[in-house]
Amino acid sequence: MADQQPTNPVPPPAEAPKTEPAATPAPAVPDGTLAGTPAPAPGGEGATISKKAAKKAEAKAKKEAEKARRAAELAAKQAAANAAQSEDNAKENYGPESPEKQISPDAIEIHLKDIGEEHVGKTVELRAWLQNARMQGAKMVFVELREEGNWSIQGIATASPEGNPVSRQMAKWIGSINPESFVVVEGTVAKPAVPVKGCTVSNYELHITKCYLHAAAPAMLGMTLAAANRPITNFSDEEQQASVEQKVEKLSISEPAGIPAASMLTHLDNIVMHKRSPLQQAIADIRAEMKQLYREYLRSQGFKEFEPPCLIGAASEGGANVFRLPYFDKEAYLAQSPQFYKQIEIAGGRKRVFSCGPVFRAENSNTPRHMTEFTGLDMEMEIKKDYHEVLDVLENCLLYIFRNIKERCAKEIALVRSVYPCEEFLFPEPGKTVRLTFAEGQKLLREEGPEEFRNVRDDEDMTTPQEKALGALVRKKYGTDFYTLDKFPESARPFYAKEDPANPKVTNAYDLFMRGQEICSGGQRINDPVELEARIRTKGIDPNSPGIKEYVDIFRQAGVPAHGGGGIGLDRVVAWYLNLPSVHLAAYYPRTPKRLLP
Amino acid sequence: MADQQPTNPVPPPAEAPKTEPAATPAPAVPDGTLAGTPAPAPGGEGATISKKAAKKAEAKAKKEAEKARRAAELAAKQAAANAAQSEDNAKENYGPESPEKQISPDAIEIHLKDIGEEHVGKTVELRAWLQNARMQGAKMVFVELREEGNWSIQGIATASPEGNPVSRQMAKWIGSINPESFVVVEGTVAKPAVPVKGCTVSNYELHITKCYLHAAAPAMLGMTLAAANRPITNFSDEEQQASVEQKVEKLSISEPAGIPAASMLTHLDNIVMHKRSPLQQAIADIRAEMKQLYREYLRSQGFKEFEPPCLIGAASEGGANVFRLPYFDKEAYLAQSPQFYKQIEIAGGRKRVFSCGPVFRAENSNTPRHMTEFTGLDMEMEIKKDYHEVLDVLENCLLYIFRNIKERCAKEIALVRSVYPCEEFLFPEPGKTVRLTFAEGQKLLREEGPEEFRNVRDDEDMTTPQEKALGALVRKKYGTDFYTLDKFPESARPFYAKEDPANPKVTNAYDLFMRGQEICSGGQRINDPVELEARIRTKGIDPNSPGIKEYVDIFRQAGVPAHGGGGIGLDRVVAWYLNLPSVHLAAYYPRTPKRLLP
Repeated sequence: MADQQPTNPVPPPAEAPKTEPAATPAPAVPDGTLAGTPAPAPGGEGATISKKAAKKAEAKAKKEAEKARRAAELAAKQAAANAAQSEDNAKENYGPESPEKQISPDAIEIHLKDIGEEHVGKTVELRAWLQNARMQGAKMVFVELREEGNWSIQGIATASPEGNPVSRQMAKWIGSINPESFVVVEGTVAKPAVPVKGCTVSNYELHITKCYLHAAAPAMLGMTLAAANRPITNFSDEEQQASVEQKVEKLSISEPAGIPAASMLTHLDNIVMHKRSPLQQAIADIRAEMKQLYREYLRSQGFKEFEPPCLIGAASEGGANVFRLPYFDKEAYLAQSPQFYKQIEIAGGRKRVFSCGPVFRAENSNTPRHMTEFTGLDMEMEIKKDYHEVLDVLENCLLYIFRNIKERCAKEIALVRSVYPCEEFLFPEPGKTVRLTFAEGQKLLREEGPEEFRNVRDDEDMTTPQEKALGALVRKKYGTDFYTLDKFPESARPFYAKEDPANPKVTNAYDLFMRGQEICSGGQRINDPVELEARIRTKGIDPNSPGIKEYVDIFRQAGVPAHGGGGIGLDRVVAWYLNLPSVHLAAYYPRTPKRLLP
Repeated sequence: MADQQPTNPVPPPAEAPKTEPAATPAPAVPDGTLAGTPAPAPGGEGATISKKAAKKAEAKAKKEAEKARRAAELAAKQAAANAAQSEDNAKENYGPESPEKQISPDAIEIHLKDIGEEHVGKTVELRAWLQNARMQGAKMVFVELREEGNWSIQGIATASPEGNPVSRQMAKWIGSINPESFVVVEGTVAKPAVPVKGCTVSNYELHITKCYLHAAAPAMLGMTLAAANRPITNFSDEEQQASVEQKVEKLSISEPAGIPAASMLTHLDNIVMHKRSPLQQAIADIRAEMKQLYREYLRSQGFKEFEPPCLIGAASEGGANVFRLPYFDKEAYLAQSPQFYKQIEIAGGRKRVFSCGPVFRAENSNTPRHMTEFTGLDMEMEIKKDYHEVLDVLENCLLYIFRNIKERCAKEIALVRSVYPCEEFLFPEPGKTVRLTFAEGQKLLREEGPEEFRNVRDDEDMTTPQEKALGALVRKKYGTDFYTLDKFPESARPFYAKEDPANPKVTNAYDLFMRGQEICSGGQRINDPVELEARIRTKGIDPNSPGIKEYVDIFRQAGVPAHGGGGIGLDRVVAWYLNLPSVHLAAYYPRTPKRLLP
């Protein structure tokens, strides 16, 4: 239909002219003389010749005339043949998509992931990205056609003598389509003599009968698909460095082997190609599925979803690192976590709640571990006897994700590992999780860790290098990359963390780790307003300051049961599960202090 | 365990003293004289008396002494009994929760929604809100215990003569617990003689054997549960008006019938009680389930979830109504919709994507239809032949939600309707949806609508009253509250809307309506950069302005197939499905120009 027809930003290769056939060199004939016209007899200027010589000359002329006649006949025949060819019997079978150019109504619409024996010999329709086209001689073109999810197939168009369904012009036109254009193709599914290398569908190929250009890519891509699929090593946000790198990238269209990989900035400047790379599609699939598994598990455990606000009236978790904005005649803040709101849900009569949504940190950290906007998977629940009930749910939830993602995204995980190789992520069976107290972790670090950590203390929070060193020790000792540190020191936790009644130097709070990096923080919260206010004062905070007062008041409105929870950073879970070099690669649109686009 | 023990914000009723039994009035004996001590003979001061009289007096004295002895005996007996009683044999069975006070290990942990015949006669543990307590005489107390999801049961504690498991002190103490405290109760499930009125579990009751206070509510609630469950009529954000209303509310603790309902502001100031109301819990359940159904349907149709950013570097949909904030050395904006990013996903090789997340409008509209932050359910997909493919998905998705929510949340819908009565929401069978063109809608309004709409035009967008009037006409004519207006005039749509090639005065764009109110807007987008840039110029926008250039550039990076989508406002779907008086009631934490808390 007409309204579906895109116009082409880049002028498509000119169609073969319809009336004037392209000039084909005429077959070689004696110079200057046109066949059919007898050549004048040589020496005609009044010369006397013998009868014998005349006869001989006549025979010769006859012979030449005959030769010329034959040549003319051949030329005419060839000219006719050429005329037929340049008429282009295939002209309805290719070109820019238009209402007049239609795929056969009986073609089966196909997706590459579903292709099978039942399609062999059938006429199918495929809508796909043309990722490569290569002529072989003048009559044959090979293309690679790609669909979402890294599915690709080889297509072949071969011109037949009669030029239908494929003519030489059509083959040539297909060969001239720019990579990453979107095409609509009709063809017959066939089995190649040998499996096709370089396509994920290797046991079938497509014998193209029609090919229409739906949306053209530019002649020169900002980043090729192959470049987009290479590992990134430069995650710097420094624009100067990036612009140099980018120039290098722009020049590297021809894709020789061993060319340096593009920087993250180049990827983001070429977001379309970045996202088209099978690598990024695999990461996106894994991420979406992990989020789904998180929701699945918590729903199965009686948790109810809710939506905390992003715009808040007070910075309840402290004024540092919070984004502020003018809000009509007031000031608003962007939520740093849904903590406050999860607790209102519990106070408001919910037993178990969870949320998945954006949280914001105005932290000027330019590291591969930080972003200013990321996705929090948060949960909060009533505690019956002991806060380890919460820890059980958090650990089991993550184990559920790890166990199931291996099955649901085996192909995608393998693809990511082919670009970013890494050791298998180790995790225990349910019920066999490794839980150390913070003090036990510090002890392990002191006794078995690197020299520089011989003096770590039980009452000070860990640094990133300490966490990573402990992660390596835990892997060696317990055979897992996933574990918990419990009973964090009081000094390392915010005012709402419940102290351990048996030892007020530590709290009923924990962090969960993957490969030595924190992915979840949580604990029991103080649910009694008197205890909470006292604790706030002890921490040196004014209990009547904005945000704090509203927080404490929640527990004064009505009796609130004991509760606890945790917040999981989805970006980190994805990144560290795959051992990606940066959390930015796991985000759909990473936000850093220097980067807000695209 | 000790670390689970909450301290009580409000001093609990004093426990019965353990050593000194409460003084009980001694039984009446002759004034001043103590039994057992013979009264001195009257007239002892040297008076002469006859022997007969003396004998008579002696007999009388003996009789009185005997009487006094018996009284003393009785008094001693009663004193002993009282002492036993005031020793309080039940003292381990009630009081603030503490490590020493434990529910029997063999008590079955129960949730009211699961209670059944198999529990009758069994000892169970219930953790619940005490929503009401009422003494009957000195020995008996009735309570209503509530769990999440509007489940409530009657509990009875009756003091036995021996004071165990329930003593008079215990009954009295239970009767003094403030409503909306959280309690842990042990009891035996029994069948009442007649069904209990006023509790949702009416065929069972709980004979309480233990009752511990886990978290106390204040003596005076800011808003009672009954008030929280009443329909709201005042949604004004004007603070002055609210503070008056609030005062009225604060005085209305005793809950006489006919008291005016609280305003929305009072509800939000008492968010804990607002959320505890069965009404709000039902609305929250319906909302969460609708969101789940949305995801379920789109996943089943091959859509992949992604997460658009909230922080963006340019206001791509125009500068009006956008929140701006300082972002390190730049300025950032809060996304008004994920439109730009949905399209990047399609350009980036996805066939079908969806998202669920917050969107922001800095619109100073104080109406029951507007919020500054709300939840967008967005989708975008490749178009094969015709943009109505997109409309099919959107309509079928909403029909899937309407069909399934009736089954999954029948109880919750009934509860909401009991507070906010409304006509049944009518919707068609799949494949029988009502689709009018915008022009057809205007014609219907001109020909059959109210007098004031006789002159509505086909080239001007509709006003809210026009939309509502049309909704009523469609309900009458087609028997549905859910329908679509297609082919909106070009003037009413943004620059990225694809014109109808057959009639460029209109676009391939549509709105979906519920009860005459828009809940979804969408259409086909221009996917060709040349066409897009021309259209942007026609609309009088500079194609090189910030945000616009980046947008057009996406389509220049590589060929992008035809695509379209739509954005559904979840808050509106919930509110109009239930016919709530304001969209604010459907939100978890409504954000308005004047309201950022809680």
